[in-house]
This record gives sequence, structure tokens and C-alpha cells, in this order.
Amino acid sequence: MTQEELMREAVRLAVANVQAGRGGPFASLIVRNGAIIASGTNLVTSANDPTAHAEVVAIREACRMLGDFRLSGCELYTTCEPCPMCLGAIYWARLDRVVYAATRDDAARAGFDDGFIYRELCVPASERALLMKQIEREAAQEPFRVWEMQEGRVRY
Amino acid sequence: MTQEELMREAVRLAVANVQAGRGGPFASLIVRNGAIIASGTNLVTSANDPTAHAEVVAIREACRMLGDFRLSGCELYTTCEPCPMCLGAIYWARLDRVVYAATRDDAARAGFDDGFIYRELCVPASERALLMKQIEREAAQEPFRVWEMQEGRVRY
Repeated sequence: MTQEELMREAVRLAVANVQAGRGGPFASLIVRNGAIIASGTNLVTSANDPTAHAEVVAIREACRMLGDFRLSGCELYTTCEPCPMCLGAIYWARLDRVVYAATRDDAARAGFDDGFIYRELCVPASERALLMKQIEREAAQEPFRVWEMQEGRVRY
Repeated sequence: MTQEELMREAVRLAVANVQAGRGGPFASLIVRNGAIIASGTNLVTSANDPTAHAEVVAIREACRMLGDFRLSGCELYTTCEPCPMCLGAIYWARLDRVVYAATRDDAARAGFDDGFIYRELCVPASERALLMKQIEREAAQEPFRVWEMQEGRVRY
């Protein structure tokens, strides 16, 4: 399948997702060597899971299938520019490339304001609308110390 | 429980998570009216899920318990400053507040470099290390059009 055919398949999944009442108008594919190995659609409202964006659902499904927490060698096709949560997930999954179609401005016009979250993430915590408070920093070093000493720890 | 007691409970969960070999040195609690309603630890390597950070696991568990995709009225306690993926999830979950202990610099010293992802998210796509390509923008407007016309759609 060409890149355009892959993206049009993702668009079809996104339309079907809305029509079935499963969630928002978004779908993603995980592609390896030109073949689709997993897909995901937005399931936030039907699964009661605010993290069930199409990209996250597709990444989780591909990892489950491959039995690996890394997707090196794979690409993500997604109908819309990823939100910060999904972009973070893309980095942690070590995907090689992202191909997207609609932009964050298109999403904002449809009522999905990722732009707000992008702005919040890129300012210091003290300037965010979200209240953040730090306590007990010293006590929280203990998990790191135990981690460093743990034999057989699996880095990710 | 006081804020400090809640955080020390999260630290205990993070230490136990490492000792059990379930994943990285992180744990989170979802707290409502001063009581813990859900918890989560990092399960990335044991669940083969790169999105299974403590915050995401705790948010998903709390939503499952409450049968809601929003956690308004709840607070997140987490042993370390959230990475961009988790901070995005916190916004989407509509949590009231985040209380954290260790900083992203502490995490980086232990080998968890969220700072890299924060830098990547805050620059234009063309300046990122991650390859991103846009195609088929017009075709990808169709899911939004279907969404706007869909009766009974559930916004999130």
C-alpha cells in the first residue's frame, strides 16, 4: 500500500468509529515494512479511558502483538497531528516516523483543543493553569536508589 | 491522610514495584476527598506497554472504577514530576491538581530522560529529531465532518 492508501484506510476507520459511537473522529495505524500490523481508534468515551486516543490504542495493540515495549522499525499513520500525550507515547515507543494528515488547528476547529495542552507543557509549572505542588523530594529518591541497585532491571 | 503521608505511600509502592521486577521506579495515586481511590505503578516492561507509566495506569484504573472518563474533583499524587505523555493524560483526565516529589532532573540522573521529550514537544515539527510528514490533509477532514453531524456524540 502507498502512503496515501494507508492514510485513507486510517480515515475510513476514523469515520466508522464516529458512526459506531465508539469515540472521537480519530484513527491510527502501526505500519512495518509497508504492512499494517495494528490499528486503533479513539475510544475515550466508550471505554471510559481518557488515555484511549487512537495513537495510544494502536501503540498498545502493536506492542501486545509483538510482545515488545518498543516499536523501532515501525511507523505511525494517524488521521490528525498527535496531541502532546500521544506524541509523548510515540517517543517512548521509539517509533521511526509519524505520518499525519489533519493538523492541530483542524482538530481545534472541531472542538479538540490540543493547542491548550501544548502551550501548558511548554511553560514552567508555576505558569500553568494546572495546579502543581512539590513535596517530599528527598523521600522520593529512594525508588531511584533501589532501581540502581536492582539486578536484572529492564531499562526502557 | 496528610499530603506527606499520601506521598510516602506512593514512594512505598514505587519501591515495591522495582523490587517485584514489574517496571520502573515510579508510582501514582488518585485521591478524592483525601482518600486513595486508585493507584498505579510503572508497568512498561512487564506489560510490554510503553504507555503504562504510573500516572497513566492510575488514571485508567480510577476511570474504570468511577465509570467516567473525567476525574474532576480528584488529585494525582506521583513520586516524580510527570513526563509529557503523562502530563497530557492529566489534562485530558481533567484532574484538579498534581502533587509530585522527585523532579525531571532527578529522573534524568536515574536514566529516564523526559527532558529530551519536553524539548522535542516544544519546537516546531520540522526541528524535531522525530521524523514527521504530513499528507492527505483534505481527505482527513471527513471524520470531523461526520463528527459534527453525528447526533448523540459525546464530547470529551
